[in-house]
Amino acid sequence: MRIGELSRRTGVPVPTIKYYLREGLLPAGELTSPNQASYGDGHERRLRLVRALLEVGGLSVAAIGEVLAAVDDKDGPVHELLGAAATRLVPEFGDGGSGGGRKAGSGAGSDGGGAPDAETVLARDRVARLIEARGWRIESGNKAAEALVAALASLARVGHGGFVDLLDDYAEAAERVGRTDLDYVARRVAREDLVEAVVVGTVLGDAVFAALRRMAQVDASARMFGEEAPTG
Amino acid sequence: MRIGELSRRTGVPVPTIKYYLREGLLPAGELTSPNQASYGDGHERRLRLVRALLEVGGLSVAAIGEVLAAVDDKDGPVHELLGAAATRLVPEFGDGGSGGGRKAGSGAGSDGGGAPDAETVLARDRVARLIEARGWRIESGNKAAEALVAALASLARVGHGGFVDLLDDYAEAAERVGRTDLDYVARRVAREDLVEAVVVGTVLGDAVFAALRRMAQVDASARMFGEEAPTG
Repeated sequence: MRIGELSRRTGVPVPTIKYYLREGLLPAGELTSPNQASYGDGHERRLRLVRALLEVGGLSVAAIGEVLAAVDDKDGPVHELLGAAATRLVPEFGDGGSGGGRKAGSGAGSDGGGAPDAETVLARDRVARLIEARGWRIESGNKAAEALVAALASLARVGHGGFVDLLDDYAEAAERVGRTDLDYVARRVAREDLVEAVVVGTVLGDAVFAALRRMAQVDASARMFGEEAPTG
Repeated sequence: MRIGELSRRTGVPVPTIKYYLREGLLPAGELTSPNQASYGDGHERRLRLVRALLEVGGLSVAAIGEVLAAVDDKDGPVHELLGAAATRLVPEFGDGGSGGGRKAGSGAGSDGGGAPDAETVLARDRVARLIEARGWRIESGNKAAEALVAALASLARVGHGGFVDLLDDYAEAAERVGRTDLDYVARRVAREDLVEAVVVGTVLGDAVFAALRRMAQVDASARMFGEEAPTG
């Protein structure tokens, strides 16, 4: 199909498609004449994936480029491929990144100097114990684990150190979701589809779970506080 | 304490603190002379909260302003207060917002015109059935439910319509996390603390859960694919 048809089918304006082509998010079409290219179903699907990562996943164009690189990477064992994809999808606050802000755990709350503050030390110890208690096969220095340490340390710094008491319940629920995710992924046959499923499921799955958690909170709040109106 | 001491204790530079004061994220200090103000422990705690929402929660300064307004709002029954706080924390893709991107579900994948596309109609039906099946007390048009519809429709558009099969497992896990959240919140006595706990727990709790989900995926992947290296 021509670029105009691709635009009509996906609702993405032609100039935007051209921008994605320049940025390498979309592979070039097949040239049918010196200044005319033809696009296939693969382009349409990839374009929808880019839009989903952008709109629902909230990823930057640069991050989408990295994720697509993982999808297109055909080498290495499946587990490493999945790990590479998952690593690029870890929220940025754990290890800096392109976000404008300063890094959590490296500034606010520390008393200057390069050593981790007390909250970070405590959180790191708590996370290590969690991994051990659950028997999770996770390498030390895993980026998601570091992100968890940063989030818990931040909670402690704003007076919510008690939040760690919820960690076991959260981990239990996360284990259920993580297993469900992998079962879904394991249905794929081709490795390209496999990695794509992880990427899509991880980014959009976060959005799905966050929405469900809000809904469950609204329900729990209605049950707990809905009947009466405390006078504060 | 003086502003310099507040800066030293929190690691936030003085010009940044002054910016937060101008933006209303931090209440003014008590004037001790015509051009000198004094700050208390409340300022220090609020400043750490702002930094946590910014660095770990990834909220914009404008969004933080809205969240703090919910924290500081002393009127109305607790359930409505919690609902107001939760609503401001729904991810932006469900209902537009300050993010630069287009809205999901209103452009990509629709065949032009204002009517919702087939994926949105199907997703809306699926979410309605989920709410009914679980007996969740949620008003129609709830923003989190709309965000869930948008995420599921996006998944379907990129060829992952099968992801809805996971919805019940996700909802089961979310219900567990949502109840845990409310139990944590219900420990608070003062209503200011109550709302603050919801806000902090929701924003940072998403980060905690996302990190735990990644860790559980890595573990599940290691168990499923780690032993062998498929030749793909």
